[in-house]
Amino acid sequence: MEKWDGNEGTSAFHMPEWMIQFADQKQEFNKRSTKIGRRSLSRSISQSSTDSYSSAASYTDSSDDEASPRDKQQKNSKGSSDFCVKNIKQAEFGRREIEIAEQEMPALMALRKRAQGEKPLAGAKIVGCTHITAQTAVLMETLGALGAQCRWAACNIYSTLNEVAAALAENGFPVFAWKGESEDDFWWCIDRCVNVEGWQPNMILDDGGDLTHWIYKKYPNMFKKIKGIVEESVTGVHRLYQLSKAGKLCVPAMNVNDSVTKQKFDNLYCCRESILDGLKRTTDMMFGGKQVVVCGYGEVGKGCCAALKAMGSIVYVTEIDPICALQACMDGFRLVKLNEVIRQVDIVITCTGNKNVVTREHLDRMKNSCIVCNMGHSNTEIDVASLRTPELTWERVRSQVDHVIWPDGKRIILLAEGRLLNLSCSTVPTFVLSITATTQALALIELYNAPEGRYKQDVYLLPKKMDEYVASLHLPTFDAHLTELTDEQAKYLGLNKNGPFKPNYYRY
Amino acid sequence: MEKWDGNEGTSAFHMPEWMIQFADQKQEFNKRSTKIGRRSLSRSISQSSTDSYSSAASYTDSSDDEASPRDKQQKNSKGSSDFCVKNIKQAEFGRREIEIAEQEMPALMALRKRAQGEKPLAGAKIVGCTHITAQTAVLMETLGALGAQCRWAACNIYSTLNEVAAALAENGFPVFAWKGESEDDFWWCIDRCVNVEGWQPNMILDDGGDLTHWIYKKYPNMFKKIKGIVEESVTGVHRLYQLSKAGKLCVPAMNVNDSVTKQKFDNLYCCRESILDGLKRTTDMMFGGKQVVVCGYGEVGKGCCAALKAMGSIVYVTEIDPICALQACMDGFRLVKLNEVIRQVDIVITCTGNKNVVTREHLDRMKNSCIVCNMGHSNTEIDVASLRTPELTWERVRSQVDHVIWPDGKRIILLAEGRLLNLSCSTVPTFVLSITATTQALALIELYNAPEGRYKQDVYLLPKKMDEYVASLHLPTFDAHLTELTDEQAKYLGLNKNGPFKPNYYRY
Amino acid sequence: MEKWDGNEGTSAFHMPEWMIQFADQKQEFNKRSTKIGRRSLSRSISQSSTDSYSSAASYTDSSDDEASPRDKQQKNSKGSSDFCVKNIKQAEFGRREIEIAEQEMPALMALRKRAQGEKPLAGAKIVGCTHITAQTAVLMETLGALGAQCRWAACNIYSTLNEVAAALAENGFPVFAWKGESEDDFWWCIDRCVNVEGWQPNMILDDGGDLTHWIYKKYPNMFKKIKGIVEESVTGVHRLYQLSKAGKLCVPAMNVNDSVTKQKFDNLYCCRESILDGLKRTTDMMFGGKQVVVCGYGEVGKGCCAALKAMGSIVYVTEIDPICALQACMDGFRLVKLNEVIRQVDIVITCTGNKNVVTREHLDRMKNSCIVCNMGHSNTEIDVASLRTPELTWERVRSQVDHVIWPDGKRIILLAEGRLLNLSCSTVPTFVLSITATTQALALIELYNAPEGRYKQDVYLLPKKMDEYVASLHLPTFDAHLTELTDEQAKYLGLNKNGPFKPNYYRY
Amino acid sequence: MEKWDGNEGTSAFHMPEWMIQFADQKQEFNKRSTKIGRRSLSRSISQSSTDSYSSAASYTDSSDDEASPRDKQQKNSKGSSDFCVKNIKQAEFGRREIEIAEQEMPALMALRKRAQGEKPLAGAKIVGCTHITAQTAVLMETLGALGAQCRWAACNIYSTLNEVAAALAENGFPVFAWKGESEDDFWWCIDRCVNVEGWQPNMILDDGGDLTHWIYKKYPNMFKKIKGIVEESVTGVHRLYQLSKAGKLCVPAMNVNDSVTKQKFDNLYCCRESILDGLKRTTDMMFGGKQVVVCGYGEVGKGCCAALKAMGSIVYVTEIDPICALQACMDGFRLVKLNEVIRQVDIVITCTGNKNVVTREHLDRMKNSCIVCNMGHSNTEIDVASLRTPELTWERVRSQVDHVIWPDGKRIILLAEGRLLNLSCSTVPTFVLSITATTQALALIELYNAPEGRYKQDVYLLPKKMDEYVASLHLPTFDAHLTELTDEQAKYLGLNKNGPFKPNYYRY
Repeated sequence: MEKWDGNEGTSAFHMPEWMIQFADQKQEFNKRSTKIGRRSLSRSISQSSTDSYSSAASYTDSSDDEASPRDKQQKNSKGSSDFCVKNIKQAEFGRREIEIAEQEMPALMALRKRAQGEKPLAGAKIVGCTHITAQTAVLMETLGALGAQCRWAACNIYSTLNEVAAALAENGFPVFAWKGESEDDFWWCIDRCVNVEGWQPNMILDDGGDLTHWIYKKYPNMFKKIKGIVEESVTGVHRLYQLSKAGKLCVPAMNVNDSVTKQKFDNLYCCRESILDGLKRTTDMMFGGKQVVVCGYGEVGKGCCAALKAMGSIVYVTEIDPICALQACMDGFRLVKLNEVIRQVDIVITCTGNKNVVTREHLDRMKNSCIVCNMGHSNTEIDVASLRTPELTWERVRSQVDHVIWPDGKRIILLAEGRLLNLSCSTVPTFVLSITATTQALALIELYNAPEGRYKQDVYLLPKKMDEYVASLHLPTFDAHLTELTDEQAKYLGLNKNGPFKPNYYRY
Repeated sequence: MEKWDGNEGTSAFHMPEWMIQFADQKQEFNKRSTKIGRRSLSRSISQSSTDSYSSAASYTDSSDDEASPRDKQQKNSKGSSDFCVKNIKQAEFGRREIEIAEQEMPALMALRKRAQGEKPLAGAKIVGCTHITAQTAVLMETLGALGAQCRWAACNIYSTLNEVAAALAENGFPVFAWKGESEDDFWWCIDRCVNVEGWQPNMILDDGGDLTHWIYKKYPNMFKKIKGIVEESVTGVHRLYQLSKAGKLCVPAMNVNDSVTKQKFDNLYCCRESILDGLKRTTDMMFGGKQVVVCGYGEVGKGCCAALKAMGSIVYVTEIDPICALQACMDGFRLVKLNEVIRQVDIVITCTGNKNVVTREHLDRMKNSCIVCNMGHSNTEIDVASLRTPELTWERVRSQVDHVIWPDGKRIILLAEGRLLNLSCSTVPTFVLSITATTQALALIELYNAPEGRYKQDVYLLPKKMDEYVASLHLPTFDAHLTELTDEQAKYLGLNKNGPFKPNYYRY
Repeated sequence: MEKWDGNEGTSAFHMPEWMIQFADQKQEFNKRSTKIGRRSLSRSISQSSTDSYSSAASYTDSSDDEASPRDKQQKNSKGSSDFCVKNIKQAEFGRREIEIAEQEMPALMALRKRAQGEKPLAGAKIVGCTHITAQTAVLMETLGALGAQCRWAACNIYSTLNEVAAALAENGFPVFAWKGESEDDFWWCIDRCVNVEGWQPNMILDDGGDLTHWIYKKYPNMFKKIKGIVEESVTGVHRLYQLSKAGKLCVPAMNVNDSVTKQKFDNLYCCRESILDGLKRTTDMMFGGKQVVVCGYGEVGKGCCAALKAMGSIVYVTEIDPICALQACMDGFRLVKLNEVIRQVDIVITCTGNKNVVTREHLDRMKNSCIVCNMGHSNTEIDVASLRTPELTWERVRSQVDHVIWPDGKRIILLAEGRLLNLSCSTVPTFVLSITATTQALALIELYNAPEGRYKQDVYLLPKKMDEYVASLHLPTFDAHLTELTDEQAKYLGLNKNGPFKPNYYRY
Repeated sequence: MEKWDGNEGTSAFHMPEWMIQFADQKQEFNKRSTKIGRRSLSRSISQSSTDSYSSAASYTDSSDDEASPRDKQQKNSKGSSDFCVKNIKQAEFGRREIEIAEQEMPALMALRKRAQGEKPLAGAKIVGCTHITAQTAVLMETLGALGAQCRWAACNIYSTLNEVAAALAENGFPVFAWKGESEDDFWWCIDRCVNVEGWQPNMILDDGGDLTHWIYKKYPNMFKKIKGIVEESVTGVHRLYQLSKAGKLCVPAMNVNDSVTKQKFDNLYCCRESILDGLKRTTDMMFGGKQVVVCGYGEVGKGCCAALKAMGSIVYVTEIDPICALQACMDGFRLVKLNEVIRQVDIVITCTGNKNVVTREHLDRMKNSCIVCNMGHSNTEIDVASLRTPELTWERVRSQVDHVIWPDGKRIILLAEGRLLNLSCSTVPTFVLSITATTQALALIELYNAPEGRYKQDVYLLPKKMDEYVASLHLPTFDAHLTELTDEQAKYLGLNKNGPFKPNYYRY
């Protein structure tokens, strides 16, 4: 595998800046997978003693036998051995996890029902590389129900739920993934998905771009039969835009990361809740009366500010963009420079996507017991490295919680070592994952069925009508009743009764 | 003037549907002008007895002499008579109004200061057609300070503040406008602005498209020297897009209506306040505990819902767009069809831009004392015409408030006869008008100074950087302090330190 | 009448401090009555041109004939002349006002229905002295329906609605009141209510204490037959407590001012809405982003703060009481001293009940265009007198709005000359008045029917059960469904199923 | 010990109903202690793997040796053996916990400072029986600093933090308590506190009434020297009122449970945060768009409703008290009977203090996946016993989370088996405990120093001035600046400049 190692592979892109970002991102994903993993498994009695704040490491500890799955001979009950998972015998337990997830992913289940007659993915051969969780399993089995054949690897070496992988293998899905893969394992699994005799993928579902990258490197000819790529992550999308700019993108790609529904749920609505959750679980603090500064008033910042204001905190905002700044003003937040309030605030939250927003100088000036955390992007926003100096003492007081102590005894409380608080210290609700998975499924259907010429070798946003469709599939969860346009009204507005209902530049 | 009359003029476009809309809109504008007019003048002691709810009619009543301004000979103190206003002697009073407005329009005043060295509009010859109010006067005098020559007419026959027009004329601006123009007067005034010996406009600032239309009809050759059109209204923008589609737009045009800042202020932030204001001034109702249905969850609906929820009302939402519907759910509103709640609600508010959203059938089923009003667009949303039937009795209980009484004694309370509540029954804060005026000024500067080729014969949105600039000019009002990117951060984000800070598809 | 004049009468109490307060209060009541009066009449077309902000004076201007009602001979249609109103012919118009008020006072109407069998006030002879408005008329006619005989005078020389008084007289109620009474008229009317041959009151309903005072002074023997006094106003209640302390209270008195329901509605819920309404109607300002300091965090302050925060203002609070201060903190407001923020705020609102909370020194330091208003009590909170100095210029820009201009051009915007903003510049919703009137009716029933010994010669709060009953009568307005305790639950809690449900010290 | 056992002791009161309540309450307290214990210890690295949701049992598991502390011979470093704790060697670790708590209990630390001159508790001999946690330790050491001698036992057999008890013993406090006492141990410890040669308590600080009860039963003569009892718990206060009613209370007692500050923090402010925290930690649910019914609109219900509304839930309220019901309406919640919404809601929360609010019939009608939990009182509100029937399957999916499954597959999610969610599944912030501890300290000072005759043999509320003082001591935490009355203002209001500022019936 020496030729295929991660460093060689990725360095081939020669794009230093975002490669650094990608590396950051990857670390984040490790955490994320851990979190998602925890959530599902923690439902079970057998795992009920799992600490909410346990680090990724604890998961690998729990592996009960040392033999590599690659060395095992396993068969599912139908006799197939076209898979590689930790332990096929865990299938029944994983199936239960999947069934619980099905209850909370009504949109995918609705897609299955609607597709009982027609199979919009009949003939599709999808190779996928994502986190392997109960929610992903619901997605995969939905794709199957819609007519597709699937082969799947994990996009992260820690995030696979072994039980779920086993259940998928038992159900006939060729899955190659287990928790605690080595980097070599990682690429081996991906290769086993694509390098098959008598089977060639015609669709790619990727999360992070590694699968896409692998095919580019090893099997460029495969792209002749591939109808398109669906990519979910910020990083993977970034890579695709780079390829497109460089004229190297040879199939259409769908950027599902920037669809309206996904953005609002991943950012505004999800963070509105997870900022409170993350702070409570780590610090047990009381929000009422606390002074908080939120750096950045994008969707994430808006969510954090709204939640904390509602809980009785006094919130200040910093911004670089005057439009967002004016929004902060109109929403009732004082717009300040960080320096103006750094001495008085009880909490500092970064939501900028920028780097070194909180510097050592800021950290030096914070008051005793100030809490510092990051809700933004990656782990660059707080200059944590600057705190690793001899005169400061670090004291780990809980998992994900460090006290950094100054020589004069002042201590600041640093959460998740500056990584994403919401991924590290709270959970992502299944409802949010449901929206993402539905968007992915629809993007695959769209690309697979699009008439010749609709999509060129470029990166596309999900068509607005599909975005609207994802939303409509989730309305029944809230017993929400949509109004239909009359013919007369549709004509008056110049709209189709079934949408799309807004111009592309509409801001929601 | 028989060839130039309004009907002939507008019918020339041959676009029946939107022409109807345009007619509706025009009615609205009449109201708007009235309102804006009231606001400014009501500051003065001499007008302090003016009723908040007085109809447009009351303004024409107050005209003190019957002679048409067109028949008068007037000169300003410098001896010029190149203007036509009601009474040049009212100039001093109008000047005071302008001075008060200047205090609340800091952005334009800042533009004047910044332009003391360079004159970005030196050489510009701007012909304008807008409401003539104190706020417009601040805009005009700012354009003058920036180097432009201006000639101005009113875009509405009722909305001119005579005192302000006089003050502008006294200050040397050729203004042709008075309150209570006839339609013939209206086009005569416009013609006096453009048809001048030895002076040809090279920029157009329009509100509603009438001026643009006039030049198209009468002086098409003028477009050879015209560098661009800046248009503010929904209607005028619609016309420009139609011209563009038809290939008839012969200069670049700037759509300032859809800039971020203007949209958020005109819709979300302004309506959040004016829904409460409009309901209170007309009905003195208490909001707490009231059940309200808001039809439409766009920016206007979002503003109305947020305000009423905050005041303790129980709010239901109807929507046709599943994305906006999902937003309503996440914001805590039950999404219903109007029929489901029409019997139980105390207030019905339309914010859709659609027609016949509230039908006679709905009106028949409302409970006694239900309040019905429109915050959306035009006067089409509530089917008011359906209430003009013999079995129903109309009782005017206040200006802008009608009780419509059913044979069984049930009465519903209809506000502003279904026209826009916020324009009819509340006021538009100067701060909102300041944002609009600043946007107009910057659009003029941009179009006038743009290098050859930047803009083609098409309709453009204001460049994001200018939108951001408008916002930044208004931040000092809130003592808001913007953060600046460091060089390192700008590089990391791949942004210019001065913006623009967001991609064009960013949703705010 | 020289012996009976107001000064002589009131000075007899020899309590200088509260007498001053009383005088202040009286001024306020004049305003209040005006406001209440305006509201009802403004419904009518004939009055639709009435300015919302007109001062009390404007009402007397509209009197159409100069003859004093005391000099007129009038008879109602049944031939009775036992009344004295402006013009009995206005009865029909007043009746319509009363009918509209009935629709919004469901609790009193419910009381009438429940009393169709039994007449809880049979035999009651009530003498009343309150504002005479449509709402009071609904109360009086309800008392009549419950079996009482009533005689009524006005508690304020300006607040009587002549049409309503006429309608009551036409319906057989001996009413002695008109708008624009002289002080002599005022006491004459009261005397006509109590000094009747063959009729002696056995119950008193008072608002301000003047009626009670009159009987004390002139007919002390009447108290032998009087079963009790019901008093609504702060001032009147204060007087009663003073009498009680001095051992001079000779009948039981019910303080309805401090019942839970009335307090919450008059203060918290009503002010939450009227602060916005009052500011908008006077200044058309935008709330979003404005910095506001609210002095005092009692019920009124809590209401103002909640409303402004919800509209996007940034709110600071001052307090003297550490408990209320801690509440402000937990509700998300920075607690400051006025001096700390006076230079930066856009609005100053007083809600303390204290005097000289805003001093000349504060006023000197405010920034240009700062708005100053009072939501608290009386007109003492802002030291308006200190602004009446030669170097400052006052400019009345609207009714109730003054600009006070400093030599350097700075102007502050003073609302209602420091009197109560909510009474001067907004309206009191009928729903709030309904709660007050119902409380009064129930207090009369309770005192009249109480068995010997339940009440001594002291001042009582309304029994909690009655307070709960007032609340329950208003729940149908909101289609609100109360849960009933099961027998088992009532036993578990040690409560009667019909209440009272809380101990007396419960804080709600 | 046969004469002293718990049953005999408590049954002596002969008050069956509240004894049942007391038993319930005791269970609750067990949980509470567990929670409080967890919080503090979880700060330490050595305990960082402790599950947030671990049951009480897990604590006893961790005991490392089996010998009863009663059988051990231990001495602190000063040679004293007048204590009985698990292991005196853990003192250093406990000291660190206490030091951290000191940082978050500024009010007690301020009391220590102010008392450096005078010792308001000089001569006081306090016997205490409370949870023994770091926060209690700060209280005890404060009492010591104020001059008191203290002896202490635990009020709960599970809640003692052994390390903290060791630290107190090391510091010279005679503490008799360890985690996992038997009932016999429990009373033995209490007895060791009071039955000492040459030392008689003159003050009692109790939490639950067991200590008080013990002295009543065993050493009634001690009351001759006892100046008063300070009692914190609902149960203990209930017992005291019963004693008082029965004429058996022989010393003054202070009910600190009902002081304003404590009530608002324990209920409104604390629950506003803990409802969100408890639901998130147990279910990871998303709040946005969820339909919730909250049973009861007292302080706890108000807190829950406000928080969930702010997070985008749609909240319904049930109430039996019409006043609270009307408040719910004005705050924007639909008031319903539980039956009306039980089929549609996603979450049911009880906050009533009542029993069987949620019955089996309600549970049968809930929809699939409905979450049911209790924020009220004890474990009586949800009829959990009714779910223990053969046709229903219980599945424990996490600690504190059970799925109860109906034969048709419907499952409801029951949290904490119907016990208090906030005590079982979230934490109590130190700030709240600080307010309680400060109140206790001040109550002891007041009772100890009160002049003869101020307090009789009755139950008293904390004097308002002291309540205000507790609040004032906590204001610096928020950098909150209180305004002081001028002499003139104090006179005008008839108040002392230092308070109390409100009449006793003031509702806050």
